[in-house]
Amino acid sequence: MKKNAIYGQSGGVTPVINSSAAGTIRAAISSDKIERVYVSLNGIDGILKQNIVDMTVENPMEIEKISYAPGAIFGSCRRKLTEEDYDKIFKIFSLNNIGYFYYNGGNDSMETAHLIAKKAEKIGYDLKVIGIPKTVDNDLMKTDHCPGFGSAAKFTSIAMLEATKDLKSMHTSSTQVFILESMGRHAGWLAASGVLAGINGEEIPEIILMPEVPFDQDKFLQKVEYSLLDDGFCAIIASEALTGADGKFISTSDFVDEFGNVQLGKVGIYLEKLIKNNLGKKVHVSLPDYLQRSSRHIASFVDWQEASQVGTVAVIYSTEYGMTDKMVAIVRDNNDPYISHFEPVELEGIAGETKIMPSEFIGEDNMSVSEKFIEYVRPLIKGEAPNLFLNGIPTYPKLKLKNISKKEI
Amino acid sequence: MKKNAIYGQSGGVTPVINSSAAGTIRAAISSDKIERVYVSLNGIDGILKQNIVDMTVENPMEIEKISYAPGAIFGSCRRKLTEEDYDKIFKIFSLNNIGYFYYNGGNDSMETAHLIAKKAEKIGYDLKVIGIPKTVDNDLMKTDHCPGFGSAAKFTSIAMLEATKDLKSMHTSSTQVFILESMGRHAGWLAASGVLAGINGEEIPEIILMPEVPFDQDKFLQKVEYSLLDDGFCAIIASEALTGADGKFISTSDFVDEFGNVQLGKVGIYLEKLIKNNLGKKVHVSLPDYLQRSSRHIASFVDWQEASQVGTVAVIYSTEYGMTDKMVAIVRDNNDPYISHFEPVELEGIAGETKIMPSEFIGEDNMSVSEKFIEYVRPLIKGEAPNLFLNGIPTYPKLKLKNISKKEI
Repeated sequence: MKKNAIYGQSGGVTPVINSSAAGTIRAAISSDKIERVYVSLNGIDGILKQNIVDMTVENPMEIEKISYAPGAIFGSCRRKLTEEDYDKIFKIFSLNNIGYFYYNGGNDSMETAHLIAKKAEKIGYDLKVIGIPKTVDNDLMKTDHCPGFGSAAKFTSIAMLEATKDLKSMHTSSTQVFILESMGRHAGWLAASGVLAGINGEEIPEIILMPEVPFDQDKFLQKVEYSLLDDGFCAIIASEALTGADGKFISTSDFVDEFGNVQLGKVGIYLEKLIKNNLGKKVHVSLPDYLQRSSRHIASFVDWQEASQVGTVAVIYSTEYGMTDKMVAIVRDNNDPYISHFEPVELEGIAGETKIMPSEFIGEDNMSVSEKFIEYVRPLIKGEAPNLFLNGIPTYPKLKLKNISKKEI
Repeated sequence: MKKNAIYGQSGGVTPVINSSAAGTIRAAISSDKIERVYVSLNGIDGILKQNIVDMTVENPMEIEKISYAPGAIFGSCRRKLTEEDYDKIFKIFSLNNIGYFYYNGGNDSMETAHLIAKKAEKIGYDLKVIGIPKTVDNDLMKTDHCPGFGSAAKFTSIAMLEATKDLKSMHTSSTQVFILESMGRHAGWLAASGVLAGINGEEIPEIILMPEVPFDQDKFLQKVEYSLLDDGFCAIIASEALTGADGKFISTSDFVDEFGNVQLGKVGIYLEKLIKNNLGKKVHVSLPDYLQRSSRHIASFVDWQEASQVGTVAVIYSTEYGMTDKMVAIVRDNNDPYISHFEPVELEGIAGETKIMPSEFIGEDNMSVSEKFIEYVRPLIKGEAPNLFLNGIPTYPKLKLKNISKKEI
């Protein structure tokens, strides 16, 4: 008997997580091994609450459009599961004849997927579990890069490019320093990608602050001063996760989630004050926050396409090859022109680890990046993913999101 | 004898100020009344320093591309002129045979243009002065709207749309409140434009805070609470210039420019603390800052086109009709489908005045906008101005910017 498949989205969103949703759902609908294709609303939370919708009843045109929407179109969650939760999940899987589980998320979500795969094996429940990677932070192990990163990097480089043009316009009689605060919980990948503002011969950010190297206040202020002397203005990009020599975040708020992740942010304002107080300069600070990870309107075509493909490949691994407890990883074959392929990697050993930028990607002064990093990141922002514009703003699919009947458990 | 023309950019930039530059320069080059077409670098400052470049020697293909660049491609300035400066300007105009002066700016710049026109009349110097409006703030008098506003409004509505999708994705287990801080020095036009996030049937911002109505903390917190009860999440857009019942800005920094304008900002963080402290909710805040006024990559086609046309019309007014001391105003003929035309208005009476949102544009609860406002703003964000993408980011013209010979004065 054919089994049903279920897909869920988890963790912080990316501009192209819905492209992975579309790639998974379309491949699952096409597969002759899969009966019905379900999606849980708000990830694992939706499974526990039986908020499960049936994709098989949606209009295929609207499914096609899923990849055009920002955010997580089926809702996401941050939830650490208890032993009881795991038991409940398998009851619900069993009642709904679930044989395939695709979980689309980052570090914490790959842990959840792995624990579900292990539990299935332990209790002898026939379940194929495949993790579909996503994170703008690009900090997942075992993959060359993460879907979502390329698009957030593209947003970041265009933001730096455009804002630096603004700064340059006014620097002779107004603001001379601009700081963009970048997301990136533990790694500097996204902040570093601001360097791409310069790939067509325009100004690059003079200073890139990554959490991989401890923040050195004196050297930083000195570099700002030199930059002001040389160019008359200074454009800076700083990671929200910037840390001091003591290994502590420079700037945090007081919110901590269930996985122990603290809410970061406002390092831009910290640096603004530093420059105002020490150099007496007017500073403009941009904190894009959500805009950096939800800017679907300017997603990278390469990233959008790979995000869709990792979803499709997840279905192929599980249905054609019977794989489980794996994540779809991206392997780079060639930099320029860019070629990549996909490989299955063990889910085990992904969770809890963070891929930080290797030292060969960081510039000698610790406040810039190397040519090697530029070679690594530049293919990932290429091309512009299509949009559907209506009335001057993007338009998104209208899904029925019809809940399947909830079972007594 | 034919005279030369000079064009300059002034004040804060818009995503389409360079479209006005292109429209002015191309019309001036085409005009049989004008000999050479000059541009001063950094506005009036460039005239005083004789940093004046000759557009007649540029490659026409690169001139065409000027309208694709963000920022002020010829540099902008904020400078209050002294009596001595005015004398010097006329010496430089005379030595360079300047007969046409086009100044592209906002409130303060229209004052500068008006004073130059008055001075020309007083000393009997034959000069045609035309002001070309621009400001993302949309607060200039005598024009239906300002070039630059439509594009910043488009950025703002797309940012609210995309960020609200992010918020909605996670609200069941993470952040429930999102605040976007909008530019808008004295008027709420830009913050109000966030409402357009909803024109295709998606969520609109639940709360819009404009400086036209004093901030009422209790009513605000109550509305946040109701919104959280109703929808589970609350998306807010707030003007940086939000004022309390005492008429003072809620949040300012300590920087004041030569025109007495204080640097605003961080009202988003003020509101974040208010919500955290009173409602105990996790909040995400986005301060796009420069991104809001330099996001050329997502400029409105209508705005981009009108910005070019006000430049062209400035040349026609001065060369064909011999007008001076005028600004090119936009007059709206029809809302939907949108039709507008241009009219000359006196520069006098523009400076010092600020066009705030009329009460009929503000919703009854003072934290939303009316249908009339939506009718007013929606045509202005329509269409997507073209971009030239290369390597995944926009590419801009390469101009020679050849300085004309500096004269002894």
